[in-house]
Amino acid sequence: MSHDINSIPHRRYNILTGEWILCSPHRTKRPWQGKTEKDTTPKKETYDPSCYLCPGNTRSTGDTNPDYKEPYTFINDFSALLIDSPVETQENGLMKAETEVGICKVVCFSPDHSLTLPLMEAEDITKVVKTWKKEYAELGSQENINYVQIFENKGAIMGCSNPHPHGQIWSQMSIPTEVQKKSAHFKEYWEKNKSSLLGDYLKQELEAKERIIVENEHFVALVPYWAVWPYEIMIAPKKHQQHIGQLNEEEEKAFAEILKKLTIKYDNLFETSFPYSSGIHQIPTDGGEYPEWHWHMSFYPPLLRSATVKKFMVGYEMFAGPQRDITAEQAAKTLQNLSDIHYLK
Amino acid sequence: MSHDINSIPHRRYNILTGEWILCSPHRTKRPWQGKTEKDTTPKKETYDPSCYLCPGNTRSTGDTNPDYKEPYTFINDFSALLIDSPVETQENGLMKAETEVGICKVVCFSPDHSLTLPLMEAEDITKVVKTWKKEYAELGSQENINYVQIFENKGAIMGCSNPHPHGQIWSQMSIPTEVQKKSAHFKEYWEKNKSSLLGDYLKQELEAKERIIVENEHFVALVPYWAVWPYEIMIAPKKHQQHIGQLNEEEEKAFAEILKKLTIKYDNLFETSFPYSSGIHQIPTDGGEYPEWHWHMSFYPPLLRSATVKKFMVGYEMFAGPQRDITAEQAAKTLQNLSDIHYLK
Ligand SMILES: O=P(O)(O)O[C@H]1O[C@H](CO)[C@@H](O)[C@H](O)[C@H]1O
Ligand SMILES: O=P(O)(O)O[C@H]1O[C@H](CO)[C@@H](O)[C@H](O)[C@H]1O
Repeated sequence: MSHDINSIPHRRYNILTGEWILCSPHRTKRPWQGKTEKDTTPKKETYDPSCYLCPGNTRSTGDTNPDYKEPYTFINDFSALLIDSPVETQENGLMKAETEVGICKVVCFSPDHSLTLPLMEAEDITKVVKTWKKEYAELGSQENINYVQIFENKGAIMGCSNPHPHGQIWSQMSIPTEVQKKSAHFKEYWEKNKSSLLGDYLKQELEAKERIIVENEHFVALVPYWAVWPYEIMIAPKKHQQHIGQLNEEEEKAFAEILKKLTIKYDNLFETSFPYSSGIHQIPTDGGEYPEWHWHMSFYPPLLRSATVKKFMVGYEMFAGPQRDITAEQAAKTLQNLSDIHYLK
Repeated sequence: MSHDINSIPHRRYNILTGEWILCSPHRTKRPWQGKTEKDTTPKKETYDPSCYLCPGNTRSTGDTNPDYKEPYTFINDFSALLIDSPVETQENGLMKAETEVGICKVVCFSPDHSLTLPLMEAEDITKVVKTWKKEYAELGSQENINYVQIFENKGAIMGCSNPHPHGQIWSQMSIPTEVQKKSAHFKEYWEKNKSSLLGDYLKQELEAKERIIVENEHFVALVPYWAVWPYEIMIAPKKHQQHIGQLNEEEEKAFAEILKKLTIKYDNLFETSFPYSSGIHQIPTDGGEYPEWHWHMSFYPPLLRSATVKKFMVGYEMFAGPQRDITAEQAAKTLQNLSDIHYLK
């Protein structure tokens, strides 16, 4: 006898990391008596004199931002990584450490303090994409920089301390754990099938249609079958590309357009400036070719039921593994049905 | 030339999971302009008529709690796992899933609504330890239950929806990811060295003393060298034991005592009811012997600077790997210097 396993507790396999995620679809009726978050509606001013990211303002280090009109990047004033650290390892019995070398940058997406990606024009998001490309190439070509992590923490609930539209880039000598996991699975599949693990998956998704949220000629945005966060989304190029440096002008625009559409849907979901952490996974900049890799960008948003109730990844999740209540298909259906026009417009 | 790598950005290796953590000790001066949490001081009433965990109260399912005097366990009314699910796998191209079978229980630590572990008497915590032992044995002996995860989410900030002192137990058919990672490293070391990976590490720590917070004849509580969370702590038995079922009466008491001392220090750190998720990692209940395993309990507390400022594991951490600002040694020193007497007493 065969059941619809999607309606009973089940685990799904993440083909990129090799890890499982527990899904409890029967559990959505659970009442919520726990913590709720403040709903922080976006600020309205286009310039905030107290914001250390606005053009012309002075930062806590004393540096002054130029009167920038386009995306503006600078070295993080409180970098977690430093480029001039010595390279050294230390092993003392079962205690093993090594120094880490790196460069941390801040990327202001726009001079306009009041904006966020969904409220920006697609052509201005294209400038952000071009900035990411430039930084990936420049940082990646520096000595000792073997991996470049582009990411954004959006919203106070995601530890973001400034509402000015911005993201970060932390680049470093060693290859981070999450990237290594994916490398291993891309490689194994490539060697066996001579094709892209993610590319083949995208083909299957494009045929199934069930989890596709937005699509254009060059990109697809979908809720991965193995999504962990309630409304997690992955954007990937249809073409087999290893890194964003390979995007041509048309693809840059297509990427910006899908970013705009997707983040508008996110804001519309709970009629709030939707918080998330997003990041681009692509090949290391250590000179390797990594033909097996297929770059992609993921969005991990914490909100579950409303603008004020989030999913907590706590006890069970920390000690066993991730757990979710709604299925990827339920999340996809909700996102598919949302308008492409921002609720504030 | 050799540097004190502990004062510059470095990575440390977790011998149990095989993963690295980035440490940025120079970064503690970073100002915090981001989200702060509400400081929720513990409720004072010993009985709350609206609490669904207090003795004699009726839960949302209509079940009534007995007038319990000792730790009380029951099946979670909103279990993420169900015992009567069919066992099935489903593979469709690159989409792979399998049903999961399990039992989720709630463990009320005390009938007294106003308490928390640090405010309970050691002999009452011993009863909690005995309850965990009993549940581990009983759940673990059921068909299809191959792993038993005991954990506690404490505090609203950790997704805990009810301040009544309680923890949870989720038991299941498959072995969770985090446990598998540790199994692999215990096993590799055991086969090579014929001794306990964690036991040998404890010996090294007991000699170094630097990271030890509390110790008694049978247990040690320390900040692991590879700690991820700001004030993370691990409690482990000095004796090589695979699971809590092996604790004798004296060891149960010693475990309860160290739990009390440690959680008192936690509350004293920021003079608040200190939030955390804690969990016990021990051997699967699939009938295997796992001689290599050494059980332990870990505390992952999110607070970083005060009762209202936490560490966010967001963008970089989600896409690359964990990052911390204070070193394990700095955290240990702070914890060591705290009083053993609760700040409310
Ligand atoms: O079961 P509870 O306390 O309602 O829920 C809490 O713990 C669970 C297990 O860690 C998590 O999955 C939930 O996100 C969290 O809110
Ligand atoms: O660099 P920020 O924005 O001050 O800090 C934020 O992002 C970092 C990178 O994900 C995290 O390590 C911090 O915990 C978070 O608060």
